[in-house]
Amino acid sequence: MGGVWSWIKNMASLSDIAVSAAINCLSAVLFLVAFAILRLQPINDRVYFPKWYLKGIRDSPTSSGTYVKKFVNLDVKMYLKFLNWMPAALRMPEPELIEHAGLDSAVYVRIYLLGLKIFCPITLLAFGVLVPVNYTGENFEEMRVNRRDLTYNDIDKLSISNVAPGSRSAAIIIIRLYAHIVMAYVFTLWTCYALYNEYRIVTKMRLHFLAAERRRPDQFTVLVRNVPPDDDESISEHVEHFFCVNHPDHYLSHQVVYNANALADMVIMKKTLQNWLTYYTNKFERNPNKRPTTKTGFLGLWGKHVDAIDFYTQQIEALSKEEEAERERVLNDANAIVPAAFVSFKSRWGAAVCAQTQQSNNPTIWLTDWAPEPRDVYWDNLRIPYVELKLRRLLMSVALFGLTFCFMVPIAFVQTLANIESIQKYLPFMKPLIEIESVKAIIQGYLPGIILKIFLILLPTIIMTMSKIEGFTALSALETRSAGKYYLFLLVNVFLGSIITGTALQQLQGFLNQSPTMIPQTVGVSIPMKATFFITYVMVDGWSGIAAEILRLVPLVVFHLKNTFLVKTEKDREQAMDPGSLTWAISEPRIQLYFLLGLVYSTVTPILLPFIVVFFAFSFLVFRHQIINVYDQKYESGATFWPDVHRRIIIGLILSQFLFLGLLNTKKAYNATYFLIPLPILTFWFFRVCKGRFESQFKKFPLEDAMKKDTLEKATEPNLNIKTYLQDAYVHPVFKGAIEFERPRVIDEEENNPLVLTKRSFHRHHHGKQKQEEEEDTSEDRMETLSSKGGSTSKAGPTVITAQDKL
Amino acid sequence: MGGVWSWIKNMASLSDIAVSAAINCLSAVLFLVAFAILRLQPINDRVYFPKWYLKGIRDSPTSSGTYVKKFVNLDVKMYLKFLNWMPAALRMPEPELIEHAGLDSAVYVRIYLLGLKIFCPITLLAFGVLVPVNYTGENFEEMRVNRRDLTYNDIDKLSISNVAPGSRSAAIIIIRLYAHIVMAYVFTLWTCYALYNEYRIVTKMRLHFLAAERRRPDQFTVLVRNVPPDDDESISEHVEHFFCVNHPDHYLSHQVVYNANALADMVIMKKTLQNWLTYYTNKFERNPNKRPTTKTGFLGLWGKHVDAIDFYTQQIEALSKEEEAERERVLNDANAIVPAAFVSFKSRWGAAVCAQTQQSNNPTIWLTDWAPEPRDVYWDNLRIPYVELKLRRLLMSVALFGLTFCFMVPIAFVQTLANIESIQKYLPFMKPLIEIESVKAIIQGYLPGIILKIFLILLPTIIMTMSKIEGFTALSALETRSAGKYYLFLLVNVFLGSIITGTALQQLQGFLNQSPTMIPQTVGVSIPMKATFFITYVMVDGWSGIAAEILRLVPLVVFHLKNTFLVKTEKDREQAMDPGSLTWAISEPRIQLYFLLGLVYSTVTPILLPFIVVFFAFSFLVFRHQIINVYDQKYESGATFWPDVHRRIIIGLILSQFLFLGLLNTKKAYNATYFLIPLPILTFWFFRVCKGRFESQFKKFPLEDAMKKDTLEKATEPNLNIKTYLQDAYVHPVFKGAIEFERPRVIDEEENNPLVLTKRSFHRHHHGKQKQEEEEDTSEDRMETLSSKGGSTSKAGPTVITAQDKL
Repeated sequence: MGGVWSWIKNMASLSDIAVSAAINCLSAVLFLVAFAILRLQPINDRVYFPKWYLKGIRDSPTSSGTYVKKFVNLDVKMYLKFLNWMPAALRMPEPELIEHAGLDSAVYVRIYLLGLKIFCPITLLAFGVLVPVNYTGENFEEMRVNRRDLTYNDIDKLSISNVAPGSRSAAIIIIRLYAHIVMAYVFTLWTCYALYNEYRIVTKMRLHFLAAERRRPDQFTVLVRNVPPDDDESISEHVEHFFCVNHPDHYLSHQVVYNANALADMVIMKKTLQNWLTYYTNKFERNPNKRPTTKTGFLGLWGKHVDAIDFYTQQIEALSKEEEAERERVLNDANAIVPAAFVSFKSRWGAAVCAQTQQSNNPTIWLTDWAPEPRDVYWDNLRIPYVELKLRRLLMSVALFGLTFCFMVPIAFVQTLANIESIQKYLPFMKPLIEIESVKAIIQGYLPGIILKIFLILLPTIIMTMSKIEGFTALSALETRSAGKYYLFLLVNVFLGSIITGTALQQLQGFLNQSPTMIPQTVGVSIPMKATFFITYVMVDGWSGIAAEILRLVPLVVFHLKNTFLVKTEKDREQAMDPGSLTWAISEPRIQLYFLLGLVYSTVTPILLPFIVVFFAFSFLVFRHQIINVYDQKYESGATFWPDVHRRIIIGLILSQFLFLGLLNTKKAYNATYFLIPLPILTFWFFRVCKGRFESQFKKFPLEDAMKKDTLEKATEPNLNIKTYLQDAYVHPVFKGAIEFERPRVIDEEENNPLVLTKRSFHRHHHGKQKQEEEEDTSEDRMETLSSKGGSTSKAGPTVITAQDKL
Repeated sequence: MGGVWSWIKNMASLSDIAVSAAINCLSAVLFLVAFAILRLQPINDRVYFPKWYLKGIRDSPTSSGTYVKKFVNLDVKMYLKFLNWMPAALRMPEPELIEHAGLDSAVYVRIYLLGLKIFCPITLLAFGVLVPVNYTGENFEEMRVNRRDLTYNDIDKLSISNVAPGSRSAAIIIIRLYAHIVMAYVFTLWTCYALYNEYRIVTKMRLHFLAAERRRPDQFTVLVRNVPPDDDESISEHVEHFFCVNHPDHYLSHQVVYNANALADMVIMKKTLQNWLTYYTNKFERNPNKRPTTKTGFLGLWGKHVDAIDFYTQQIEALSKEEEAERERVLNDANAIVPAAFVSFKSRWGAAVCAQTQQSNNPTIWLTDWAPEPRDVYWDNLRIPYVELKLRRLLMSVALFGLTFCFMVPIAFVQTLANIESIQKYLPFMKPLIEIESVKAIIQGYLPGIILKIFLILLPTIIMTMSKIEGFTALSALETRSAGKYYLFLLVNVFLGSIITGTALQQLQGFLNQSPTMIPQTVGVSIPMKATFFITYVMVDGWSGIAAEILRLVPLVVFHLKNTFLVKTEKDREQAMDPGSLTWAISEPRIQLYFLLGLVYSTVTPILLPFIVVFFAFSFLVFRHQIINVYDQKYESGATFWPDVHRRIIIGLILSQFLFLGLLNTKKAYNATYFLIPLPILTFWFFRVCKGRFESQFKKFPLEDAMKKDTLEKATEPNLNIKTYLQDAYVHPVFKGAIEFERPRVIDEEENNPLVLTKRSFHRHHHGKQKQEEEEDTSEDRMETLSSKGGSTSKAGPTVITAQDKL
């Protein structure tokens, strides 16, 4: 992003734009054609349609047809209709989409739709009213009369810069400016209307979704953190007693949390070793004459030669033993239990009450909150005590400030280090390569840019790590918080950074030394001049970026590599598939940048708007296609992110109003600007009203709805044994078999026939415990069940993939 | 305030301060001597010790002794010990004080104690370290060498202004500045420690208080607002059904709210008429020869002559009939029921759950919150719908901005109107008076000042009206919000207004046109120069003001007037007593001003600190005395205001840090100032930590505590009939007899013996309803009971005083 972006900064004129547009359209089209061809090849089927495989609807095409047909599509007719994915993407109706991909995804594409809803009418109005007004403004022509050297282009002529303190007729100029002010009001009103409407629709969708949702463990469960230590009782006993006393009619059971981070690391490690074993076994099978060898050192780079298959088999065996020992230790060591627990209730009502109320008079202990759904839990952070959490938040706020405003400092430092001399000094074996003149030139010329680029690629990871340090306990929360941080970064470093020269820190210093009324003015004045730059930005980052998204180059390459080296069975192939998911923390802030650009330029340089509209339309198509065919979401939050989307669009709106106010101030139309002052106030009020009206529907679970679902369930399934259903829902993934964890569980049948002795209940009988009476169930024997489960899982062997692996 | 304040602005030098201190000490001492003498007179006993009368411990001294002794105290010995109220005020231990005056009052005096705790050590340290450092700074003497005309006084020599960019030795100056910076850290640390400690203690007191509190209706009750309209059901039925469905195990009963504002007005009117009747009856009794007459017009000023006693008897009779009709109308008209209700639960646990959870998925309806205690309810605001509430808040925010920054505009306007010419034109009958030269001079000279003064006297009322318009439903909430507004006003117009010249609006414009880093600098530089002004302010507003508080001049005069004209029976005399109460909305922001001054000047001009310390010590004494002997609180909130106190002191602390930073910046010690930047960040973090640690204990009622109280109650009073207890707790005061409402109710005895046929239950039997079975109780027959109660109340006649009267 950084490199391209400084490159396009140099372009400005309309012909440059045209060239850039042509190049970008071409590259976008090329991506699309490549996509259209590649997706038809059966060999890529698992790259472009993984969702359907995961759903079990699509089978491997390798199972039928000739050998060639297995890999290449020879049907010419299909190539002719290479754009037919577009209508196909639109064809699936929304309710089906929600059913198919979940509410999160369906609402995510609605962000693009909202962009269209906001900007299509605005574009039409702006072209109908503002463009003619600006074009006939004649400011530039007049200025040209005075200053021959002034350069301006056609885009400038269409912007508000062409309406200005010219000498012609003050009255006409005032009228022209008022046209802009009226339009600012109209645009704001329309945006607010669209936002309100969308908030309403999404809220409705969410409520409908939650109401229709089938039984899920998190509906009955509350995450309790900061369980206070007790001298006489274990954590498990303490939790049980506390909730038995304070929620006597509703408490059902609880699940303690083990500090299984070391164990999780071992599981990941074992998975890697198993991959290597598979790799060498495959190699040996293909070439049975020669047993493959490896070196014992790091990554097989050095050390003594050994037989690879034996080596890895041994390693895995050793690790399995260690893992088993660690598992035993965790389950039997009281210190391995973190002061947190998942407490389940007999009804949704009971859970809703517990999640929304304060338990103890000390608000730093017995903190209760809705449990995230099991897949969504971020286990590592459950143990953090209260004061440490506060301290982490403080440190991360300071770090975020540093990251946003001072990120150039360490990069500049690394850039000065990474020069020819240091490379020669510290990496002497590279010396012959560097001494070639052309290589040297490339290093000197591009190394700084490459370092910046690497930083920008690493940025989302850095931000996610920061959010993890902040101590959130759910993946969804981590993503939401990361999105906020990334948005701030983009706002400061891409939007403001492109408008004003200098690093972010310099800007900040400049702002601190300027009066608050001058800041929007300084920024506002530069805005019309940067229109061409942003148009190019929209095309490069927006259009081509989206086209690249649909091509999925990286997953394509990775899949084929895995397919070649690691895949043995059909199951392995399934695991080699990487459907990916919506990268919320990165994509959403980027969309917000386009909202911001559109809103800022709507009154200033409306010519930018069509580019934004095309971006939204194209993205809508692409992401709808991806959601239907590719992405597999890791968790389902029921669109809890919408308040963030709404808030950030309103931040963009208010920002655009302030910048417009600053810009108008420079037009020496002070009276006119007074008319604009109510605009941000009213917009903020609108934000408050929306917040009050809708936000709690995304944060809380109302008792009325909980009661409705409970009553319905009681009527339809009177014999439901909810305790059995919830028993292992919140067991740490390393204690679960991979299959059991990844697939929908089959407990529902069992629950409907509690009298049938299923394998599970038989298992318990075998342990000499009769647990039909729920009241007698103590945490102790739950632990025993767990340990026996854990043991059997580890013996299940090589297919252990846990959710932990995917983080 | 305004007049005195502009007058003392002109004084500056040390000798002026000495004179001013002398004058103020003298006036304070005079007030105290007057108080010491007046309080010993039996005739004033009800003015200075009303609390004991209300408690029923003290009897009228008129009942024994000679006639003279009834009015004047002749015991000389008592006059000698005229200051013995001071140790007496300190003697009562805190737990007894809480028992005697309530937690609100006990915690209120702790604010002064906190002031002492913070400022005593700071004063000692500042005098030990900073005063010597400043005094030996020699900046002024050096400057004097250069500029002969420079004037400075001894106070300036003790302030930081004496340490400055002198030419002597840079190193020494830097060390001197660092001494200030280190002290700034030490002071902040100490303040935070004291704040934390105090927050902890107050929290503990509150929890203890709540745990020890006897049964109160608000513990079981939740205020439900915005009940949605329903086509088929009345509001009462709708509420009942909703809570029966959604809180099936906990819902007990509910009380609808009548829109009885018109009725309340009538009650107040009737009370006034009755006062007049009493006045004329008394007059007639003292002089039985002549029947008193009055005129029928406004305030008896014009209209035809009538016999006063007959006239008022008729008027009261007519009004009683009207009142009766209105009462009938309200009780029978479905439209008179506002969409709000007080819903009671079977246990505190049930109420706590309902108050803390969201009921409906539409967060604008079925809003539940803790019910204020019955005396604390502000009935007029219960009916406001959601959107109107939001709109009111918006309008009041704008109005608050206007009040704070533009209050001078309308006052200046009135001042220009209120000149000699307009008075001559519109009030011609005043003409002869005005034409006297001396009167004319007084009017021209003082009228503008008087108008400002009137505004400042009216200000608390204006602010309270604004809070009422904002729609809060409890008197305590109204007071809290008003305090916030008043604090803003004082901060901007007294603190900043005294430091910087110009009106608040001009200041605001100035700030907007300055850079954010310049603002603390501009303000900070002026701070040392205003030290003398603020010392005088502390003496005038603080010392003398507090001394005037204990004298209670206004209540003294009013009581004797009432006693002369309106009192007939001992009961009337009791009603003539006005014990008053802590005027939280006014007093607390004023205390905050002293905290702010102390914190700001602690590092700059420590000489101000002893004055602050004396203020806190003196106020502590006076208010402790007043609370023990005088004030009678209208409601008990259990110190819910403490988070506000804490927050505002921290605002003052952060403000002082920024101003100190700005001041140091002007000393050209830029490096030094960087050391100060973490200070506000850490202070803010401290605020967040305290908020997280303590605040919810003042806002929420934890389930653990609710359950504890429920269990205890169930064990100690197994036969308690909670429904009877809550039956009429939340009936609008106009439907209640005054006596029944003002006194502790006698239901407890009845509850313990539910089988005894008391007068109340007999009354119900009489109406042919058997209500021992709680389940059969419908809202309909509750209304009937109500109307019968209302009827009997109105017949009870002339002693109807309701809580409404006192608002």
